[in-house]
Amino acid sequence: MGEKANLIDEKAGSQLFYIKLAEIQRICQADWNPVDRASILADINRLNALYMITLAGSGHIGTSFSSMDLITYLYTEELNLSIAADGKPQDLFFSSKGHDAPGLYSVLIGLGRLEFHLLHQLRKLNGLPGHPDVSVPGLVTNTGSLGMGISKAKGIIIAARLNGIPRRVFVMTGDGELQEGQIWESLQPVANAPYGEITMIVDHNKIQSDTWVKDVSDLGDLEAKFRAFGWEVARCDGHNLYDVKEVLDRFRSIPDRPKVLIADTIKGKGVSFMQTMVTSEDGTMYRFHSGAPAADHYADAFQELLQGINAKLGSAGLGDISISETEQPPKVIPSKPQKLIAAYGDELVQLAGERHDILALDADLILDTGLIPFSKRFPERFIESGIAEQDMVSTAGGLALMGKLPIVHSFACFLSTRPNEQIYNNSSEKTKIIYVGSLAGVLPAGPGHSHQSVRDISALGGIPGLTMIEPSCEREVRLALKWAVNKNQDSTYIRLVSIPVEVQFQLPDDYTLIEGRGVILHEGKDLIVFAYGPVLLAEAFVAAQMAARQGISVCLVNLPWLNQVDAEWLSVTVQKFSRIIFLDNHYRKGGQGEMLAAVMARTGSCKGQTIEHYGLDDIPVCGRNPEILEYYGLDRESLSQAFLNLS
Amino acid sequence: MGEKANLIDEKAGSQLFYIKLAEIQRICQADWNPVDRASILADINRLNALYMITLAGSGHIGTSFSSMDLITYLYTEELNLSIAADGKPQDLFFSSKGHDAPGLYSVLIGLGRLEFHLLHQLRKLNGLPGHPDVSVPGLVTNTGSLGMGISKAKGIIIAARLNGIPRRVFVMTGDGELQEGQIWESLQPVANAPYGEITMIVDHNKIQSDTWVKDVSDLGDLEAKFRAFGWEVARCDGHNLYDVKEVLDRFRSIPDRPKVLIADTIKGKGVSFMQTMVTSEDGTMYRFHSGAPAADHYADAFQELLQGINAKLGSAGLGDISISETEQPPKVIPSKPQKLIAAYGDELVQLAGERHDILALDADLILDTGLIPFSKRFPERFIESGIAEQDMVSTAGGLALMGKLPIVHSFACFLSTRPNEQIYNNSSEKTKIIYVGSLAGVLPAGPGHSHQSVRDISALGGIPGLTMIEPSCEREVRLALKWAVNKNQDSTYIRLVSIPVEVQFQLPDDYTLIEGRGVILHEGKDLIVFAYGPVLLAEAFVAAQMAARQGISVCLVNLPWLNQVDAEWLSVTVQKFSRIIFLDNHYRKGGQGEMLAAVMARTGSCKGQTIEHYGLDDIPVCGRNPEILEYYGLDRESLSQAFLNLS
Repeated sequence: MGEKANLIDEKAGSQLFYIKLAEIQRICQADWNPVDRASILADINRLNALYMITLAGSGHIGTSFSSMDLITYLYTEELNLSIAADGKPQDLFFSSKGHDAPGLYSVLIGLGRLEFHLLHQLRKLNGLPGHPDVSVPGLVTNTGSLGMGISKAKGIIIAARLNGIPRRVFVMTGDGELQEGQIWESLQPVANAPYGEITMIVDHNKIQSDTWVKDVSDLGDLEAKFRAFGWEVARCDGHNLYDVKEVLDRFRSIPDRPKVLIADTIKGKGVSFMQTMVTSEDGTMYRFHSGAPAADHYADAFQELLQGINAKLGSAGLGDISISETEQPPKVIPSKPQKLIAAYGDELVQLAGERHDILALDADLILDTGLIPFSKRFPERFIESGIAEQDMVSTAGGLALMGKLPIVHSFACFLSTRPNEQIYNNSSEKTKIIYVGSLAGVLPAGPGHSHQSVRDISALGGIPGLTMIEPSCEREVRLALKWAVNKNQDSTYIRLVSIPVEVQFQLPDDYTLIEGRGVILHEGKDLIVFAYGPVLLAEAFVAAQMAARQGISVCLVNLPWLNQVDAEWLSVTVQKFSRIIFLDNHYRKGGQGEMLAAVMARTGSCKGQTIEHYGLDDIPVCGRNPEILEYYGLDRESLSQAFLNLS
Repeated sequence: MGEKANLIDEKAGSQLFYIKLAEIQRICQADWNPVDRASILADINRLNALYMITLAGSGHIGTSFSSMDLITYLYTEELNLSIAADGKPQDLFFSSKGHDAPGLYSVLIGLGRLEFHLLHQLRKLNGLPGHPDVSVPGLVTNTGSLGMGISKAKGIIIAARLNGIPRRVFVMTGDGELQEGQIWESLQPVANAPYGEITMIVDHNKIQSDTWVKDVSDLGDLEAKFRAFGWEVARCDGHNLYDVKEVLDRFRSIPDRPKVLIADTIKGKGVSFMQTMVTSEDGTMYRFHSGAPAADHYADAFQELLQGINAKLGSAGLGDISISETEQPPKVIPSKPQKLIAAYGDELVQLAGERHDILALDADLILDTGLIPFSKRFPERFIESGIAEQDMVSTAGGLALMGKLPIVHSFACFLSTRPNEQIYNNSSEKTKIIYVGSLAGVLPAGPGHSHQSVRDISALGGIPGLTMIEPSCEREVRLALKWAVNKNQDSTYIRLVSIPVEVQFQLPDDYTLIEGRGVILHEGKDLIVFAYGPVLLAEAFVAAQMAARQGISVCLVNLPWLNQVDAEWLSVTVQKFSRIIFLDNHYRKGGQGEMLAAVMARTGSCKGQTIEHYGLDDIPVCGRNPEILEYYGLDRESLSQAFLNLS
């Protein structure tokens, strides 16, 4: 992590560049107009956020950049950050959308409010989580689950009033986030009270996860909406900090009403090619919402930001900024990974060609849930719901009542929880619906606990008529979807791991899905291990091979059925073993292992065997995938040791 | 069920009166203006709905009456009820609020669309459920969980379009229901499409469950809101069917936009003393939202409705209506029931007097959750959230972040599911919050599955740091709340049965709550039974006494801890028994019994014992409490037989 001058081209792709605290402080201490200073600081913060995300290998650039001017201005000019009687800053800011976390981190680091070394620790264990967490100094609330911000702010202000603290709270939201019902649920009560201490700032960059907000689920007349809900509304260019200052100054004179600034911003602001759709294949998708930029994109973005900074410094009579560098660690890319999402998307198109009653519903994750092929092939049967999971699930309910077969998609963390009551309501109608929850399990571990879905089995597992299944490889994905579409009479929840996983096991050639039954992937006689899904089966399979080299033979069973089991099959399968291990890519409470243990106990096949159950017990930590697997003792080395220890 | 003339006073309270189909048809066939006919039919339907609710012993009068003119008009004049190509009526109507089900039933019965005998079967097994269920002919969707109606209608219309059926859907909502975020989540997409086939009718009676909407959580400028969301808006007196007709006629000329009629109505319309707050003690609460009227109220209401009907008939030159009567079955009132909600409300006030950090949050169920004493004593620490559970839970999150101890209240069915992600988000912040879910379990069975909370343990049980506990009697309620407030460092979910239950067991005098441990209520040596809560423990206790008379001695354990157990205590407790029964007032999947069986299996205390697990497996049926307990084999007779069979 040495320092370096401005010539970086020859090292692009292997070296990453950032700006040190002392250099930021040099800029800050120069004789600036505060508004101009905030603007140049924002550019510096962009450069550091780009560094953090690229080094981490993932993160949200687009929204970090669109909100950067606003957040920098708030922290440098608007917020009263002196400490109040309750030990917290007088004024508080947080982002309700939360995926702009790298942006916020870079602001806090640049102001010395977070230790500088954390700049290198985004999405690492004990570093800075992918979405906000209150364990990070200066962070107010956990977000990343959308739409909760105004409600949280209300609670904060009620507490402040009771404590006699004249606190203000500034809440940043996305614009796509405004599709969430909770936003509108929370607005009116704030106006009714009124809680004039709350100011909402909409980072209105007009692009949500996939593409333009207007194309996903248009917001209509936002200003009229906020006014109808009783809020004072202003609108301005969110990158023109003189305009922003004018609005915030005016807002200060209206203490008795909640206020919203609709800030017109540009997603990816600061880097020309990140500001629109141009880089996607057909110009319809935005490619810098999440994920890290490729090497050439990084180099170009860095150069553009750097030149912009130096130009501003130059016109202020200051010298070029000094930059520092870090070696980018090599990326480990699996050679022939199983890509479940792609297989799913392909199989869905095939089945939808056969069955015209199939409709697919999406909640602004068309890319991540593998729905692009379906949406192009069957546009009339594709429903883009926006970030409105409750509406999506109940719409599916209506479709199913009319004899259609709706297939509902989102990330498992959201799909299992936000529309939890709606899924249950659908099940009470005894219609058939397929739910597909991707991004399931503890990996990827970079986004943090809001996205690590390790509670979906328990949150939905008790619903009558809903069979939950997790396929372990591309072939099993296709089998699972076929089973759900053509064989299961009731509803199905397909739990999909999204990361590509290299697996060494193979399903038997004649493998078919039989409800409640598993399949042996590795023969053994010393102990039996039950697991599901590509991540844990891949680790357990190699662990079994490692144990075999130590003379311990492990029987590894892939049991894709998450909330039910064929008790007789289970009884026969375990009867020769006195040592049993259940592996859950999920909390142990309410996981498959708990269900299996209970069934064994109730059906008399539990006769004093030693039973161990691995999985999570606490809110998952954030980090790189390998370190998190190891943290939970679910990596191949830990598992093989566990196998040996048990034998 | 003989017939009777108009003199009913002397029998008030023992006889209930209704109008037969033939008599309704006589009225229909008279030479009326259709609008006037709908109006008189609505009054007749009110009389029959009053009959149904009073006979059932519970039901929602206020909202059935406020919406009655509208629903009657829709069915007689607006809806095209001819059968479309998909076998369903051309136009569909359903109520999103759903608690106006008795009103809708009486309309359908009066029109011969539901078998007449069902008039006597409200809230009975195999009769008409307390909230809409698609198993009832003519009912379109399951409601009772609020806010899903527009989303469902959207799905229905998308399906109709794909099927080439020119269908319209009319959705009735409440006004309090508009506090739910899902309503606003669903409005914009309908306007964007647009789905002009959808007409929403707001039964704007201005009173929600507890009291005036404006006092619970004011809706603000409703017309401006709907307009801002892109809907065509009209407003009129919902009891003046000439005005209603004018609006609906106009709506028909606007096929390309979704339309909403804000119908100004009067809750309890048709019976003067049900139209306002006058009967509550201090004039602040509405008393005819749910529940059956007392005998004198019934008699007065019937008389007023009857006189109104006869007056209208008279002015149309028709003779008085003929009424029929039914003997009202005697009510079984427990002599000294345990009233958990009242005990809870009292204990809360005591603790809040000691701890000033306690705040109570409510979602329009201040009466049902026992919060009236708290709200009167500590108004500054009482937060009425309206029907906005997500907002309520995240507000609690904000309070907890600032060091307060929020206690969040709603019915268990809603609290565990609607804000499921919000509760998890709070838990990820590792703050301390207490959730109190009342109306827990399969009883009362009258409201139907939307309100029978038999999935809350599984829906929330996996959340780290959330201990779930269900007290069995008033004394244990107080202990549980004290434990949650003063002893538990983390969050607690207190699961409360709301119905008064007569219990014959007694907790030991020196009983205290020890985390994860139970207490023996009935000594025995032949088998051991684990249960929790007043309903099942009361039944099991008597069942144990019955079994004892047959020579079988049953050890009955009250284990109030729902999602955790002290494994060592469990091991010691079960070790002398070869026969074990778990009882769950919940689905078996994800219930306490599953957790206990799993813990036994994992800790080696399961050694081939016979283990049985009683509870629910399917969506619960609706009915009277005793018949539903028997239906599920959870009544004392069934249980004692189960005990004998196992021995």
